[in-house]
Amino acid sequence: MMVSSDSTAIPGFPDKVEVVDVGPRDGLQSEGTWIDTEQKVALINGLIEAGVRHLEVTSFVSPRAVPQMKDAAEVMAGIDRSKGAVLTALVPNARGAQRAVEAGIDAMVVFMSASESHNLKNVNRTRETSLEGFREICRIAEPADVQVYGAIATAFGCPFEGNVAVEDVVDVARAYRDMGITKISLGDTTGMATPPIVRERCQALKTHVPEADIALHFHNTRGVGLACVYTGLLEGITRFEASIGGLGGCPFAPKATGNICTEDLVYMLHESGVETGIDLERLIAVSRRTEQMIGRSLPGQVMKAGPRLELHDTGSVATADARANG
Amino acid sequence: MMVSSDSTAIPGFPDKVEVVDVGPRDGLQSEGTWIDTEQKVALINGLIEAGVRHLEVTSFVSPRAVPQMKDAAEVMAGIDRSKGAVLTALVPNARGAQRAVEAGIDAMVVFMSASESHNLKNVNRTRETSLEGFREICRIAEPADVQVYGAIATAFGCPFEGNVAVEDVVDVARAYRDMGITKISLGDTTGMATPPIVRERCQALKTHVPEADIALHFHNTRGVGLACVYTGLLEGITRFEASIGGLGGCPFAPKATGNICTEDLVYMLHESGVETGIDLERLIAVSRRTEQMIGRSLPGQVMKAGPRLELHDTGSVATADARANG
Repeated sequence: MMVSSDSTAIPGFPDKVEVVDVGPRDGLQSEGTWIDTEQKVALINGLIEAGVRHLEVTSFVSPRAVPQMKDAAEVMAGIDRSKGAVLTALVPNARGAQRAVEAGIDAMVVFMSASESHNLKNVNRTRETSLEGFREICRIAEPADVQVYGAIATAFGCPFEGNVAVEDVVDVARAYRDMGITKISLGDTTGMATPPIVRERCQALKTHVPEADIALHFHNTRGVGLACVYTGLLEGITRFEASIGGLGGCPFAPKATGNICTEDLVYMLHESGVETGIDLERLIAVSRRTEQMIGRSLPGQVMKAGPRLELHDTGSVATADARANG
Repeated sequence: MMVSSDSTAIPGFPDKVEVVDVGPRDGLQSEGTWIDTEQKVALINGLIEAGVRHLEVTSFVSPRAVPQMKDAAEVMAGIDRSKGAVLTALVPNARGAQRAVEAGIDAMVVFMSASESHNLKNVNRTRETSLEGFREICRIAEPADVQVYGAIATAFGCPFEGNVAVEDVVDVARAYRDMGITKISLGDTTGMATPPIVRERCQALKTHVPEADIALHFHNTRGVGLACVYTGLLEGITRFEASIGGLGGCPFAPKATGNICTEDLVYMLHESGVETGIDLERLIAVSRRTEQMIGRSLPGQVMKAGPRLELHDTGSVATADARANG
């Protein structure tokens, strides 16, 4: 019999997306354990070697507040710049911006929450005060020819307030746009994003802040991280943030996972006909080394199972009668 | 500012789906450990109490081949039938069919693989011989007024052969249809389904075996289980199989997960405007008890993080400067 088939792509998905690995910053910071500078550098260079071209590598924050990131400049100094990978770092204030410029960052990421209570709790400032601080950061970045990206935390929900109005997210994106920041990421800080909320926010930003170049940053805290990516792809989003191996966690749910896993994301994208420029096999190797580095099993699945066409010998595995459909 | 928004549904998703919990059979069998009959019954009755109305509760197989299922009749005898939940069980042959009828099953599930090598390995028969056996099973089921469902293992890929032609899946579905079996589930035996392959198979079956009422049975072995559900929903599928807590595993990838997790599936469905009739909070409670029963951490995420609007006090969690977007 003949059956016509197309099993290589999903209509509506873009042909190509940028995958941003935030594991070295977001992932390691949430893990909480100290990782040596050389190990961080090896992780970052491994990701670059696997074809990752966008990485959030560190943050230039107070070493007292976030001791895991105190070696930001040393990490930067060790990174292989020959492949042209775009390196970004979180920057909370003018002091951090100056350190980031000195360290040779490509883009600094400023960040605030869409919900007032989370912003107050996270950076001890109102949203208005956060925005004022960003203007100062922009004044440092511009003459140094360093880009500024804007992150919006709690963009899909707030652990203190619950639902976050789409208007609040649009307002922050507008404020960013008004100061010339158009690379904007929506952060799913505690894993509250769902497909309909993702769809609503993407459509509202497309309508009201069309200049924004949106990235989506999901956590898999409630298991639906890649389903949210699916929605984002259908909405035409072409930049996604993820963490190698699913490195990281969630302070509100100690046993749950944090960031979506980079290699699982890349696997889904490639299998759905979306190019990333990344070599999945190499990425899996980096993920397995990251598990050893961090000393615990990470949530990534593809590194445990291997790519889908990694075949088995019929003699290699005992299956039992009635295991079918299992 | 005003922003029009619809954050309650995904266009193209059905309004309502049937969630089939296969944890008591598929999940427990893959776990490999012995669970007492009373505990199995408590698990099944807990699921029914949470609103699950379709359950694969056991299998009537040789106690030597699958010792975990040797108490199939005793399990059946303990199940609360007052809510009208539909109970199914795997049945490999005429002997099993007779036992299933005697135990009062609602529907028996016959199963074979779309790939010849997996069928030979799993049940030691060619596909042709499997089909012959099903005719005998149907002859036992019919006078007893018991339904017969058909499962197709390796429907999205085979661990021995790699890709499985869509034609092979359609051929098995046709053979089922020709013997009067129209409730057909496509099993993702070792987690090889991807969104485009799901789409292709759903469309081919709709075209070539329109009488088939298709269920999808995904494993999360490579992290994309709920993304595959997403595709199935867009293709109009309204029956999905999952396992409470993500109970189960994969014999080909010992550290990877098996079945998609029922409560994570239900969470995604409800949040996407799809009704299931299931009470998520109660389901989470069952999942947490299942973790205790099985004595290990299960892969389900929602049971660890709680529903998305479970709020936190701002004093309850330490966040650090620069944790935003994390």
